[in-house]
Amino acid sequence: MVSIDNTALFTDRYELTMVSAALRDGTAQRPCTFEVFARRLPDGRRYGVVAGTGRLVEALAGFRFDADRLAALKEFLEPDTLTWLGDYRFSGSIDGYREGELFFPGSPVLTVRGTFAEAVVLETLVLSILNHDSAVASAAARMVSAAAGRPIIEMGSRRTHESAAVASARAAYLAGMASTSNLEATRRYGVPGAGTSAHSFTLAHTGPDGPDERAAFAAQVDALGVGTTLLVDTYDITRGVATAVEVAGTGLGGVRIDSGDLGVLARQVRAQLDDLGATSTRIVVSGDLDEYGIAALRAEPVDAYGVGTQLVTGSGAPTAGMVYKLVEVDGIGVAKRASHKESRGGRKAAVRTARDTGTIVEEIVYSADAEPPSTPGLSARPLQIPLVRDGEPVADLPTLEEGRAHLADALVSLPWEGLGLSSGDPAVPTRFVLP
Amino acid sequence: MVSIDNTALFTDRYELTMVSAALRDGTAQRPCTFEVFARRLPDGRRYGVVAGTGRLVEALAGFRFDADRLAALKEFLEPDTLTWLGDYRFSGSIDGYREGELFFPGSPVLTVRGTFAEAVVLETLVLSILNHDSAVASAAARMVSAAAGRPIIEMGSRRTHESAAVASARAAYLAGMASTSNLEATRRYGVPGAGTSAHSFTLAHTGPDGPDERAAFAAQVDALGVGTTLLVDTYDITRGVATAVEVAGTGLGGVRIDSGDLGVLARQVRAQLDDLGATSTRIVVSGDLDEYGIAALRAEPVDAYGVGTQLVTGSGAPTAGMVYKLVEVDGIGVAKRASHKESRGGRKAAVRTARDTGTIVEEIVYSADAEPPSTPGLSARPLQIPLVRDGEPVADLPTLEEGRAHLADALVSLPWEGLGLSSGDPAVPTRFVLP
Repeated sequence: MVSIDNTALFTDRYELTMVSAALRDGTAQRPCTFEVFARRLPDGRRYGVVAGTGRLVEALAGFRFDADRLAALKEFLEPDTLTWLGDYRFSGSIDGYREGELFFPGSPVLTVRGTFAEAVVLETLVLSILNHDSAVASAAARMVSAAAGRPIIEMGSRRTHESAAVASARAAYLAGMASTSNLEATRRYGVPGAGTSAHSFTLAHTGPDGPDERAAFAAQVDALGVGTTLLVDTYDITRGVATAVEVAGTGLGGVRIDSGDLGVLARQVRAQLDDLGATSTRIVVSGDLDEYGIAALRAEPVDAYGVGTQLVTGSGAPTAGMVYKLVEVDGIGVAKRASHKESRGGRKAAVRTARDTGTIVEEIVYSADAEPPSTPGLSARPLQIPLVRDGEPVADLPTLEEGRAHLADALVSLPWEGLGLSSGDPAVPTRFVLP
Repeated sequence: MVSIDNTALFTDRYELTMVSAALRDGTAQRPCTFEVFARRLPDGRRYGVVAGTGRLVEALAGFRFDADRLAALKEFLEPDTLTWLGDYRFSGSIDGYREGELFFPGSPVLTVRGTFAEAVVLETLVLSILNHDSAVASAAARMVSAAAGRPIIEMGSRRTHESAAVASARAAYLAGMASTSNLEATRRYGVPGAGTSAHSFTLAHTGPDGPDERAAFAAQVDALGVGTTLLVDTYDITRGVATAVEVAGTGLGGVRIDSGDLGVLARQVRAQLDDLGATSTRIVVSGDLDEYGIAALRAEPVDAYGVGTQLVTGSGAPTAGMVYKLVEVDGIGVAKRASHKESRGGRKAAVRTARDTGTIVEEIVYSADAEPPSTPGLSARPLQIPLVRDGEPVADLPTLEEGRAHLADALVSLPWEGLGLSSGDPAVPTRFVLP
C-alpha cells in the first residue's frame, strides 16, 4: 500500500567505513546488541513519548543498496564492502517500546540485535526517525494535555522540512491531536484531515472598489457549505464576524481567529456570535500557540486550537536526544568510559511498576538475561515488545490508532504532577538493576 | 539526473478547498502576486541566509496530482476541482533572492506570480523548503564565521528527520561548512563527504580479556590507511592517543575527541601528539558544539570541528519564520490589516546599497513598478533574480557552489558588528520606499 522509499543512504559515511574495516578483521560477524536510549529529557520535561517505531519498521524494508547507490559509494569503499552492501538485508531482531509509550532517561527504547556490521549501519536511520518523531510527539502530548479535551488541529507543515512535516503530522496524531492540515499525512497514514481558510482567499476578493470580505465568505460557503470555518481576522474582526453570520446564517460551522490577543478576542467573538443567534458556531484559534498558550486559554470560549510552529519544532526541544549505543558483543557487556558520556553495558529490559489505582511508580531497567526484579504490592508491565524477527516485521505490530490509545492511557497513569507543564524532574524515577 | 519526487501533497488542505471555492466564483483566474518574507529575524540574529531556492525549483517539477493523489482528495473536493488539479502545471513566474544571499526583516525573498489558484497551492511547499533550509543555513553561517577558517564537518543527520538531514547537509555546505557525513547529500548534491570513526567500532573489539582499542585502531588503519582519523576517547584519552600513534605511526591523519572539556583536551592531546612526533596529526573535536562553543575554542589547537545537533536544529531557531502572503491582485496591492500581523501590499523589489569599500549600508525595499530609489555615493545591487519563467526553471540558475561563493562574499560585506555572535539588531536596516 505504502510505496517504499529507498532509505539506504540516510546514513553517515563512517558507518560504512567501519563496516569496511570490520569485514577485514572479522569483527563484522560478531553478534552484537545496540540499544537506543535518551540520557536525559529536555530541560524540565517530565516524560517523553516514543514515536517513529512504525515508520522505522517500514523504512527498514527500503534499506537496500541498489546499483545507483553503490555507484555513489565506490569512491571511498573497496569492492568487498560494496559486494557486502549490495547483498545487505537486515536479518536480526528488534525489540522496543511501542509507539505511544512513555519513556524516561535511560529507558531502553529500542534494542537491535544482529551482527556488528548489519546493526551498525542502521544507526543513523534509527536515530533520525526516533529522534524526530519522538521530539514532536513529546511536545504534542503536552499540548494535548493543556487543551484538556478540546481538539487541536496540526497545521505546522510550512514551518518544517516538507517530509518532516508528514512525519510530524503523524506523531501529533499519535499524541492525541485531532487532525492535520497535511494532505500527505492523510493519504499515507490515514490521519484525519482538516482545514479552515486562508487570508489570501479573502484578500483575493479585492477589486477596484477595495476589499470584499463578503464576496470571499459567500464563495467559500457556496463551495464548502455553511459547516465551513470562516477566517474573520483579515480586516476588522467584529465586522468579519457579522458578515460571516449574515452570509452563512446562524448555522455557520466555525470562525477562526489567527492574530491578536486570542483570549480577549475569543470572548468578544463568542458574545457577538451568541447575540447574533449563532450559538453553535465554533471558535478556532491559532497563532504561535504552544502548550503554555493553549493552557492560558483554558477558561476562554475556545472550541479548537490550531498549532503549527511550536509543534513541528518540538516546542523548544526539536530533537529527542536519543543515542544508539553498542552494549553487548558476543555476550559481553561493553560501555564507553570517557567523561560525561558514560553508558551502561549489557542488553537490558524494562518494566514499569504501578499501584492498584493504575498510577505508575517507577521504571526499572534490568539485565535482559536476568529475571525481572520483584515488586511487591505493585504490578510490573514489561515495556519492550517484539518489532522485527529475522529481519522481518512481526505480524501484529501495533497500529497508529493503537499507539494513540496506548498513550492516552499512559498519560492517565502518570502521577498528577507528571502532567503539569511546569519544569521539574521526570514524573517517575528510573532504577537500574544491573550487574 | 536527480529523480523527481512527487511533491503535490506537501500541501495544506485549505489551499485546495480555497481553489475549489475560487474556481466557482472566478477568483481562481485572477492574476496574483505572492511574496515570501520574514517579519523578523530570530532573537538577536544579525542576518539570515537564504537557502532552499534550488531545491524549490526542483520540487516544482514534481508538483503533479497523479491518479493516486487525486484519489486521496476526492473525499473532500468536487470533480471540477479534481480535474483542475489533474491538469495542474505551474505556468507563472518566480523571482527571488539567490541561495547564499543574506536577508533581513521584510526582504522580499521570493515573489511568485501567476493566477490565484496556481500560486496559492504552492504556499506550503515553498515555505517548508525555504523555512527549513534557511534556518539551517543561517545557523551554519554563524558557525562558519566562528570557526574562522577552520573546516567544519556537518554530522547532524541523526538528530533530525531523515530527509531533513539531507537538506540540512546541503544548506550547511552552502553556508561554508567543508563536508558532511550524510551519504545521500553527497550522492544527490555533490556535497563533499567526510567521516571519522565510531565508538561502537572500538567497543566491538572487546573479547573475554576485555577491551582491545589497539585491535580496533589497527583494523581501521589497515582498511582506511594512516590518513584516517581515529576516535581516541572511548576509554582513556591519553592512552588512546598513545595507542593511536603506536599503531598508525607519526603519519596518522587525525584524532577525534567527542566528549569532555574540548579545549583542555585539545591542548593536552596536541602536546602529547607533538611529543610523540605526530606533529601533523590533526585534532577534530565534536560534542554538542554550537557557534559559541566553536568560538570558545578559537585559541585552542583544534584543526576541525564536527557539528551535529545544533546545526540541524538551527541553533535555537529551527525555522526561519518566513510567510507567503498575497500582495497584489489584478494589479491592486492588498494586505491583511489585523493586529500584529500587518503586511505591506504591492509587488516589491529590493536593492542593497554598499560603500566603495564593499561594506553594505542598507536594504531598500521598493515598489516593483517604480524605479529603484537613488542612492548617491553608494552602489545599489538588485537582489532578486529570475528563477522560473512560464513555469520552467530559467537556464542559468546559480549552482550550489555559486551560492556558497556568493555567501562567502556577502558575509565579508557585512559591517563588522554584523558578524559578531552577540545578540543585536539586524546588521543593516531595511528601508521601505512604498507608495
